[in-house]
Amino acid sequence: MSRVSVYRVTVEFGDCDPAQIVYFPNFFRWIDAASRYFFTDCGVPQWRETAQTLGVIGTPLVDVHARFIKTASYGDRLALHTSVSEWRRSSFVMQHHVMLGTDLLMEATETRVFAARAEGDAPGIRAVPIPGEIRMLCE
Amino acid sequence: MSRVSVYRVTVEFGDCDPAQIVYFPNFFRWIDAASRYFFTDCGVPQWRETAQTLGVIGTPLVDVHARFIKTASYGDRLALHTSVSEWRRSSFVMQHHVMLGTDLLMEATETRVFAARAEGDAPGIRAVPIPGEIRMLCE
Amino acid sequence: MSRVSVYRVTVEFGDCDPAQIVYFPNFFRWIDAASRYFFTDCGVPQWRETAQTLGVIGTPLVDVHARFIKTASYGDRLALHTSVSEWRRSSFVMQHHVMLGTDLLMEATETRVFAARAEGDAPGIRAVPIPGEIRMLCE
Amino acid sequence: MSRVSVYRVTVEFGDCDPAQIVYFPNFFRWIDAASRYFFTDCGVPQWRETAQTLGVIGTPLVDVHARFIKTASYGDRLALHTSVSEWRRSSFVMQHHVMLGTDLLMEATETRVFAARAEGDAPGIRAVPIPGEIRMLCE
Repeated sequence: MSRVSVYRVTVEFGDCDPAQIVYFPNFFRWIDAASRYFFTDCGVPQWRETAQTLGVIGTPLVDVHARFIKTASYGDRLALHTSVSEWRRSSFVMQHHVMLGTDLLMEATETRVFAARAEGDAPGIRAVPIPGEIRMLCE
Repeated sequence: MSRVSVYRVTVEFGDCDPAQIVYFPNFFRWIDAASRYFFTDCGVPQWRETAQTLGVIGTPLVDVHARFIKTASYGDRLALHTSVSEWRRSSFVMQHHVMLGTDLLMEATETRVFAARAEGDAPGIRAVPIPGEIRMLCE
Repeated sequence: MSRVSVYRVTVEFGDCDPAQIVYFPNFFRWIDAASRYFFTDCGVPQWRETAQTLGVIGTPLVDVHARFIKTASYGDRLALHTSVSEWRRSSFVMQHHVMLGTDLLMEATETRVFAARAEGDAPGIRAVPIPGEIRMLCE
Repeated sequence: MSRVSVYRVTVEFGDCDPAQIVYFPNFFRWIDAASRYFFTDCGVPQWRETAQTLGVIGTPLVDVHARFIKTASYGDRLALHTSVSEWRRSSFVMQHHVMLGTDLLMEATETRVFAARAEGDAPGIRAVPIPGEIRMLCE
């Protein structure tokens, strides 16, 4: 059984577009927060701490597949159920289910990597093997 | 040969996250703008006009698959190449290639529908067949 | 004594910029949510309901003065204390204090109006007198 | 005569809220981009370069007063006219005028400082005197 974290968010007026529904990039903003929340919930420190201790600055997305099933509007209180379905050497697969009550609004499958800052002065990142300390906290 | 529109955007400081790279939901914001730009470029009026004339209020996303290949940072000038690869009855498939010079940063395949406002007072939308007038402009 | 509502928000990774601190337009996003929350907290229905009953579609901002005193970063849990310091005929003055524990991070004074949709087909809004029903709920 | 830079932006569908008009925090996003653009236009390198050469990581906002005069909606092409009206030791005052054709939509007066990273490991910033090299480029 894998761990599931639940991240909650209320849809605000400004999250909605002229069609009165959530402007979809906001779902990705919430999914990203839910992804981070999964690690927090497992006891992994903030990335600014792991940057110092493990060199890890975050878990950037490399691939995402998302389905939008029902719409939401402002005032709706959403619950994002997040889990890791697969751990690989430097990447992992995350599943998100965005629920409004018992309705599934959206689901997403993400592949993310653990990243360190690229060598040299240029902005950029590079994938690193998943630190054992982090994986142990999350399983 | 399908039509390709090119939507340009400059990455701003505020589009980047503490890892110094584009915060990925912004790519979806730009892809959504590029999707809208494709229609503008084909001569389709703004949705607030088609809402009056055809009942169409937009083309909400129902499915997206995206791959993130290289990162970008502020000051980068991106070009989003957008086309429709398939027209169905009420949905269509859009392809986006986000380029930085000759580098492919990200690609996305979207399924979108043409939508009208749901009947009744509740916020919400419903899919409608693709208006012939719009499809003709875009092919 | 005027009513004070408290809206809470957690700063997410993606709310921060390459300087590792909250990208300031997000403070305005939260202040706008706090402004809306004040009315919800007072029992005012969602704007999509008041649009039907009173013609009111929201409370757009006409003037804001904000001071940024301390920075915040991801993981910080903020509390926005919001109140109305003055009611006029069609406008009102809102005060927001954004707190991190006992530290004041930011304060803002807003002038907002109650708005209805502009007449005719063009997008746009017009100020209307503050409905007595709403003002009574909020005092 | 002070220098004026002109930053252009097109309002997108997703920049607008259920009232069909620009969601106001986006104006601050554009003003921040225009503020950065002013420096770019004057020949100041990106902040990631000045971070290396001068220790300057950006020009965070400490105070802003903004007036919203007319609304805009998607498809509108805005021009932000930006200048520095006053240089102080470590702060400066910026003026922004957001124009739609000859209409003034919004104006803002900002006080910003030049900032370096705070000493120590905590996230945070500190004000520094305005580097002579930068001021010379901008006058």
